[in-house]
Amino acid sequence: MRLEQHVDSHLVSPPGRRLQAVVSLSPKASRAARGDDERGVQLSLPSERRLRNPVRVDADQRLEIGRLGPPGRLPADASHEGQASRGGGGRPRAGRAAAQRRMARRGFWRRQPRHDDRARDHAGEHDENRNDEEGQTAPSSAMIAALRRRVVHGRLKMPQPSRRSQLIPFSPIRTMFRLADEMERAGGGPVFRLHVGDPDFAPPPVVVEATAAALRAGKTHYAPTAGVQELRTALAGKARARNGLAASTEQVIITPGSTQALFATLEILFGPGDDVLLPEIYWPNYVQETMLLGGRPIFYPLGPGYQPDVGALPQLVTPRTRAILINSPSNPTGAVFPEATLRAFYELARERNLWILSDEAYEDFVFRGSHVSPGSFERDLPEEERRVFTLFTFSKSYAMTGLRLGCVVAPSLYTATLLRKCQEPLVASAGMPIQWGALPALTETERAGVARMKAAYQRRRDLALSILQPAGMADYVPEGAFYIMADVSETGMTGDEFAVALLREERVAVAPGSGFAIQPRFTADGSPMAEPSPTGAPEYPTNPKARHRVRIAFCVSDEELGEGLRRMVGFAERHRAGAERPPAQRAVRRPAKA
Amino acid sequence: MRLEQHVDSHLVSPPGRRLQAVVSLSPKASRAARGDDERGVQLSLPSERRLRNPVRVDADQRLEIGRLGPPGRLPADASHEGQASRGGGGRPRAGRAAAQRRMARRGFWRRQPRHDDRARDHAGEHDENRNDEEGQTAPSSAMIAALRRRVVHGRLKMPQPSRRSQLIPFSPIRTMFRLADEMERAGGGPVFRLHVGDPDFAPPPVVVEATAAALRAGKTHYAPTAGVQELRTALAGKARARNGLAASTEQVIITPGSTQALFATLEILFGPGDDVLLPEIYWPNYVQETMLLGGRPIFYPLGPGYQPDVGALPQLVTPRTRAILINSPSNPTGAVFPEATLRAFYELARERNLWILSDEAYEDFVFRGSHVSPGSFERDLPEEERRVFTLFTFSKSYAMTGLRLGCVVAPSLYTATLLRKCQEPLVASAGMPIQWGALPALTETERAGVARMKAAYQRRRDLALSILQPAGMADYVPEGAFYIMADVSETGMTGDEFAVALLREERVAVAPGSGFAIQPRFTADGSPMAEPSPTGAPEYPTNPKARHRVRIAFCVSDEELGEGLRRMVGFAERHRAGAERPPAQRAVRRPAKA
Repeated sequence: MRLEQHVDSHLVSPPGRRLQAVVSLSPKASRAARGDDERGVQLSLPSERRLRNPVRVDADQRLEIGRLGPPGRLPADASHEGQASRGGGGRPRAGRAAAQRRMARRGFWRRQPRHDDRARDHAGEHDENRNDEEGQTAPSSAMIAALRRRVVHGRLKMPQPSRRSQLIPFSPIRTMFRLADEMERAGGGPVFRLHVGDPDFAPPPVVVEATAAALRAGKTHYAPTAGVQELRTALAGKARARNGLAASTEQVIITPGSTQALFATLEILFGPGDDVLLPEIYWPNYVQETMLLGGRPIFYPLGPGYQPDVGALPQLVTPRTRAILINSPSNPTGAVFPEATLRAFYELARERNLWILSDEAYEDFVFRGSHVSPGSFERDLPEEERRVFTLFTFSKSYAMTGLRLGCVVAPSLYTATLLRKCQEPLVASAGMPIQWGALPALTETERAGVARMKAAYQRRRDLALSILQPAGMADYVPEGAFYIMADVSETGMTGDEFAVALLREERVAVAPGSGFAIQPRFTADGSPMAEPSPTGAPEYPTNPKARHRVRIAFCVSDEELGEGLRRMVGFAERHRAGAERPPAQRAVRRPAKA
Repeated sequence: MRLEQHVDSHLVSPPGRRLQAVVSLSPKASRAARGDDERGVQLSLPSERRLRNPVRVDADQRLEIGRLGPPGRLPADASHEGQASRGGGGRPRAGRAAAQRRMARRGFWRRQPRHDDRARDHAGEHDENRNDEEGQTAPSSAMIAALRRRVVHGRLKMPQPSRRSQLIPFSPIRTMFRLADEMERAGGGPVFRLHVGDPDFAPPPVVVEATAAALRAGKTHYAPTAGVQELRTALAGKARARNGLAASTEQVIITPGSTQALFATLEILFGPGDDVLLPEIYWPNYVQETMLLGGRPIFYPLGPGYQPDVGALPQLVTPRTRAILINSPSNPTGAVFPEATLRAFYELARERNLWILSDEAYEDFVFRGSHVSPGSFERDLPEEERRVFTLFTFSKSYAMTGLRLGCVVAPSLYTATLLRKCQEPLVASAGMPIQWGALPALTETERAGVARMKAAYQRRRDLALSILQPAGMADYVPEGAFYIMADVSETGMTGDEFAVALLREERVAVAPGSGFAIQPRFTADGSPMAEPSPTGAPEYPTNPKARHRVRIAFCVSDEELGEGLRRMVGFAERHRAGAERPPAQRAVRRPAKA
């Protein structure tokens, strides 16, 4: 049977710069494309020549693991990321995924030898109807010519999505969510989830109960844009007492999480064509947000222990620079910047007339000395001479990631007014019940719970070091947060290769370092040097400093962390032994076809 | 004593284009500016000549009503808007507000005769220490010269906030929140709150309980960016069954409210310098969001009954046009566009290659015929030929405004992928417990509750018409949502004047029509023709069609609505009688000083 008899294909133009085709692989999928829940498989058809390098927009749950072929870059993100990690779930749809794997197995759209079959077999998975579509081949040139004719005839003139939305990178952290989920669903027991920065603790019971009470008491109407006044006042008090900020209630803007706080703040700190200084190893949202807002990230170098090279900072500042972002304690490195470093940042900002955005999501988890808020350096200045925006969140300190609550402390009333004004079209406000529910978290009583979590993270950090250091995989000591960037260079693998192979062989999920080090390039006028991709995001170069790193998060029990890390070290030892083999070969246990 | 001995003043530069001074009016306020909760009073000092036209960034709660002097434009928004409307609250701080009123009474920074004293006396409010700071005068030229020298000497080189954040207008709806709150706090009984589009109903009990249960069951961790799969599936089913959309689960992106859904969608629909077609009388967020995103709103005309003039649409489309926004049923007009109109929009979008964004927040409140989703026109097209993004929310249908939950149904997998990708840096995700809590709202059982609310809104609409029509204040019949744009032109007042005077005289709050009709002007390259203002937003021209309108919302009990409207009609009758007097005089009962 010819493929053409099976497929329902037509050009799509969303990414605009390339031809694309939707190929639905079975009559069922073809019907489904009319409104059912099953989706067709979308692959790029830029030309016949490039046909063997397909990508997909689809979000089929099992497909991705089949695409993790050659050790190399992680696949583009897809839409189920993390969905089942905390009980989301949903059954994979075997029929079409299986069909696609069948095609993949035949080398239909392979570029390189694949070894995903091994993983699938390893997982004990079988195609129930492996042989029912024999004889398939690549789409013929006649088909492609027909697809092209449709475009030439202008029948599919479709609007283009904005370049900004097409050009920001995916956050690769969540790709590991999905891969781990897929692996668990495929059977074979649980996965050690060392890739997730989501505390394994529960929110304080008092928060749960106060939120439920607020719901029942009818606190279900619009909250003020800037937040419930009582919570703002409590947070201002906390920022004065614990962070040393000169914060009034009016300077506190409550946000649905500090991700959103960061976006709103960046929105007011710079405009299109401006530059923002970011750490070169960073939380991926920083670059996504900077690019969505038309800015250009400029990366400041990090030296040993991921400490900033403050001497290198001044030369990065140009007339286009508007702001410096500081994230101490840091995600993903766990580095805590000493006060002298923070002061150097502050002085540079003052000299060169820049804003500072201080993301202090991990303020409560500092293991040596105490947390320093750069905003405290200017507490005695008149408000209109202050320049530090400080971001806090309930997510980490109180294990409330899914409750979406954070805040910005703006340096002045004017900037607070702008923030509040912008929040109205951005989100209207944070949720009402959770604002009432979060109030009791700020009492002194609840500090004991935070202290217990801090002790747990510190204990796990020590445990991680005790396993990684003897193996030569930890070359610094994270002093805060709950992460370490482990060094996998002795395996010869990149972090991406390491993470995928480790998940397959040992069922241990870690986050590849490259995801925290994407470095898009820009033209002189500040436009990203990239083109939209049918996957949803272009591939960008990454900082070599993160190339052989993986991020470990201490958000599982001590036992799980210990066992996962021991497996990882064992895995690394085995692969170090065979380090002569080039990486592309090493992970391949069974020769690929193609 | 001289004012200079009292004030702690210094230049501030945030808005950049003008000199400004912070003048703290007492030693206490001066101390407070160092970190206490009380704030100094900020007023612009562009020059001595302009000193009598001050503005404030401060958010003092009582001040605004003191500034509502000459009937005219509403004052700039301040940060407590709506705070106490549903129980937020917080005591006004009498000391400084009183001091400022004292200064205002002396004509210290008046430009025009003021009559706010009357309102204050009317409210039975008294200054406990009215005479303790006699002899104050305006800041001297010596002081202003000193302030200027500091700028000249470059001691206050501060970074500028982005123009976009400074140039978007305030949403004037919420200003009325604050004024009404202030009036209630000032005593004299409750205010009739006809200005608020926040349903007076409670969320379905099943939602409250399911949310509380989810909280207690540990559904407190990160949700998937696109939303909990079960809810996405349920919403896709609802969109197919009730809206006739060709919606798969993958096309549904859950958002923290439809405000945020709208921002995210606009983010991907156009880029900087592009145009978006909006109705000329509109929900203010549309223009705020378009401008934040670097776009230019182009307004399509509305004729009688706020129906679009579809014949005028094609000539508005230029090569820069990217999208048409449709909001039916409409906030603020209550207009429901007939299917023929919606089809005309759709055909234009297809012919001219535009996206459509259909905001269907009020889909469940259509009083004649049934709601039509423009996305249903393309249900039989292949997904990559679809162009309609549809926005839904739980806020209105289920009275869940404070719970922040909505969704976008994207027309294709590719655009859904972009939305999901952008949502990660924008908000991470919607809250986790409420996503589980909202699930039971979508069952058929809960439709009865929605039907009851619809019946209530329709009954109130009829009640409103029965009062407004005989008075000549309703010239059309709103067929949906829960609003009417009442006509106050026979009073000779603008909607702004009418709203302020009505609140003062009758304790009835309505929303001035101008807030739904701001029409910024733009340069040829798409930049707003405006400059930052120390208030936080420039003043923009408004569409004359809304000049003599106020929006009434049917979100209070029938009794309150009836009584509020009867007071409003009585007020209008009284003022119609005196229509010869120019408006600036009419509302002044006691000659102002100055």
